[in-house]
Amino acid sequence: MGRRYDTISFLSDYGAADEFVGVVKSVLRDLAPHATVVDLTHHVPPFDVRAGAFALARCIPYVAEGVVLAVVDPGVGTDRRAIAVEVSGGRGVMVGPDNGLLGPAVALAGGAERAVILDDDSFHLAAPGATFAGRDVFAPVAAHLCNGTDLGALGSPIDAALLLPSVIPLPRVEGATLVCEAVWVDHFGNVQLNVGPDDLEEAWGPDWGGRVRVRVGEHVRSMLVVDSYGAIAPGAPGLVVDSYGMLSIALDRFSAAEELGIGPTDLVVLQPAGADDGVTSPVSLRPSAG
Amino acid sequence: MGRRYDTISFLSDYGAADEFVGVVKSVLRDLAPHATVVDLTHHVPPFDVRAGAFALARCIPYVAEGVVLAVVDPGVGTDRRAIAVEVSGGRGVMVGPDNGLLGPAVALAGGAERAVILDDDSFHLAAPGATFAGRDVFAPVAAHLCNGTDLGALGSPIDAALLLPSVIPLPRVEGATLVCEAVWVDHFGNVQLNVGPDDLEEAWGPDWGGRVRVRVGEHVRSMLVVDSYGAIAPGAPGLVVDSYGMLSIALDRFSAAEELGIGPTDLVVLQPAGADDGVTSPVSLRPSAG
Amino acid sequence: MGRRYDTISFLSDYGAADEFVGVVKSVLRDLAPHATVVDLTHHVPPFDVRAGAFALARCIPYVAEGVVLAVVDPGVGTDRRAIAVEVSGGRGVMVGPDNGLLGPAVALAGGAERAVILDDDSFHLAAPGATFAGRDVFAPVAAHLCNGTDLGALGSPIDAALLLPSVIPLPRVEGATLVCEAVWVDHFGNVQLNVGPDDLEEAWGPDWGGRVRVRVGEHVRSMLVVDSYGAIAPGAPGLVVDSYGMLSIALDRFSAAEELGIGPTDLVVLQPAGADDGVTSPVSLRPSAG
Repeated sequence: MGRRYDTISFLSDYGAADEFVGVVKSVLRDLAPHATVVDLTHHVPPFDVRAGAFALARCIPYVAEGVVLAVVDPGVGTDRRAIAVEVSGGRGVMVGPDNGLLGPAVALAGGAERAVILDDDSFHLAAPGATFAGRDVFAPVAAHLCNGTDLGALGSPIDAALLLPSVIPLPRVEGATLVCEAVWVDHFGNVQLNVGPDDLEEAWGPDWGGRVRVRVGEHVRSMLVVDSYGAIAPGAPGLVVDSYGMLSIALDRFSAAEELGIGPTDLVVLQPAGADDGVTSPVSLRPSAG
Repeated sequence: MGRRYDTISFLSDYGAADEFVGVVKSVLRDLAPHATVVDLTHHVPPFDVRAGAFALARCIPYVAEGVVLAVVDPGVGTDRRAIAVEVSGGRGVMVGPDNGLLGPAVALAGGAERAVILDDDSFHLAAPGATFAGRDVFAPVAAHLCNGTDLGALGSPIDAALLLPSVIPLPRVEGATLVCEAVWVDHFGNVQLNVGPDDLEEAWGPDWGGRVRVRVGEHVRSMLVVDSYGAIAPGAPGLVVDSYGMLSIALDRFSAAEELGIGPTDLVVLQPAGADDGVTSPVSLRPSAG
Repeated sequence: MGRRYDTISFLSDYGAADEFVGVVKSVLRDLAPHATVVDLTHHVPPFDVRAGAFALARCIPYVAEGVVLAVVDPGVGTDRRAIAVEVSGGRGVMVGPDNGLLGPAVALAGGAERAVILDDDSFHLAAPGATFAGRDVFAPVAAHLCNGTDLGALGSPIDAALLLPSVIPLPRVEGATLVCEAVWVDHFGNVQLNVGPDDLEEAWGPDWGGRVRVRVGEHVRSMLVVDSYGAIAPGAPGLVVDSYGMLSIALDRFSAAEELGIGPTDLVVLQPAGADDGVTSPVSLRPSAG
């Protein structure tokens, strides 16, 4: 017997319109009634493995001990592998497709310690079709893990080094220029970049001044690095150190993504700006959504 | 005393914008704190009893033992009846309006064994208005059932044959032609039809060839029956045997509903196509949502 | 030690697109695994403290004993205060920003009995940025309350009279005219006003007749006060006594807000109409969303 778990943290691209999430949770409730399900999010954009991997990674430092069930699975029913990966001395097991979704989360949890391909179908539900692995493969496996089934019993062992890696975009340093990428636009329209304040200091030295020249497409703006949305000047975008310690382009009480026309995977170029730097493109704020 | 239940599986058209679902769950938490609520979905289109009945039926094979609370209730506050229906030798009770919402689910669970009209208001909440039966009637009744109140105590018995039936669209066979209906478009844009692969074989014999001529409105396309979304040729729609064992018109990683302009209740006409059949209308894929 | 709590009722403007709600619930699960979280709603419009205060107030009569965690917090990271407020002889504690969000709920629960500013950061999570107080301040505080930490230990006491009040719009009586306000449009398009049937009787006497002349913008309509959506004449708007005992402008199975073009904060003027009053503007119903 393996360790028993009490929590299943569940992330998917199933959305809310259908009963997909409810059916998966029904299977979990049926097979492991003692386990509590924590929904991380089910609104990863459909089929977007990269966005799902980022969202899961953002959750990992906070996720409770137990099983992580993650399903963004455009290759469901094909020969992509279904896997379970043990991390953190057995305090966690991540279950999902082997398509790069789990990679950053596994790395943040300290790396894979054991991994199996979920090829023993005695732990799966018999299904009338092969398109709903969340219900038929991943959920019953998560439930069996909660009930104490050892990871090793669930299928063939696989070398963790053979799991599909994720492509995490790193900022590129070109002299004093940092070529970054927008990785996430949140519900409030804040645009997270793949750099933190330490990256700026490393590239520009400790006395770079706190003001950044930000280029997105053809627009150039001068932005201050600040600690809260409220510290941004009204109507002007700023660079907020966000709750993950990364820089986010933000506007106070407005959507920066909408006002500036930025979305995930857009390039954002940063350079240090002198204190007197006033180059900026105007932003016309629309009426607030609030 | 009746049997006690630990799970309430909850489906509605309440949406997420308001606190309706939260208030119903607060009532359940208050009256039956030991019970766990599993949200099936709350995004049945407003007032759409038929769509709710289909969604509930799709859940039923997976729903955990206990109470099913289902509320799509455009007639709330009128003389439509509120009912509770016992199924499966008492392993389940379904609670909701008598408007056809519960019918297919009850049938899939083996049929009604006992049923009552919820006309004993000592089991309801006193309410300042009559428009929120989910909160004031169905939730407290579900909680009392979890606490061991017998179904028979909740109101007047009613012959299950008198419950309002649901209208389930069946495919129509006209020679080699199957006149079907689109019954569900899911979050990914897959369009479920009211036929499975067995229906094709029954209509066309075992050697019909695997390729189907599909007519939707004025468009005719030739589609293969396949087992996964990934097995569909890129950019061409296919007929996938979905996770309910039904045929779904799908595109690999795109919304078939959007690309082909199909929605619920649309007629879809199927005929066997020769292996050399190449009649097809072009599909211009838009950029993926992902 | 304070009282222990088993339920955390959670309302926010976090939406569902991101993992914000899931991360907060992960923190709660980690720190107070015995507690059950009831999601009230997370779809308060972003930054809309007033809408959040109304939604929370509508929940309060039904919320289970325990901790209420409410986060609509445009001023996060600034000097707005974070607070916890005890109500109802200790049966409930409300946790959130001191920006008016909690005011109506606290009042409905009988008023604040004790309150503290959450300025003891030994009860908070260390965070890489200051923008996610739900995760770093409010959730751990809610968990500690569930675990039996006394309110008084969480920070400096504050006189409840110094908490930021909410602005609740009251109807204005001008002779026989009631100048009201639309305070809420629900998922079904019903438009709740800030008056109940008692207000009409108080303004117009017991024999006012049951028919109201309703002016919204330039449009005037005659509406009957009824008890259910089904009692409204087809295609004509009515005033339904809603589930909170307030008057809601509604259409049977259609969105009154959409058809009549009314939204929150719009003025709505009511006058008694004679039984023979036929002044009305036509409504052309669009096809039902259902």
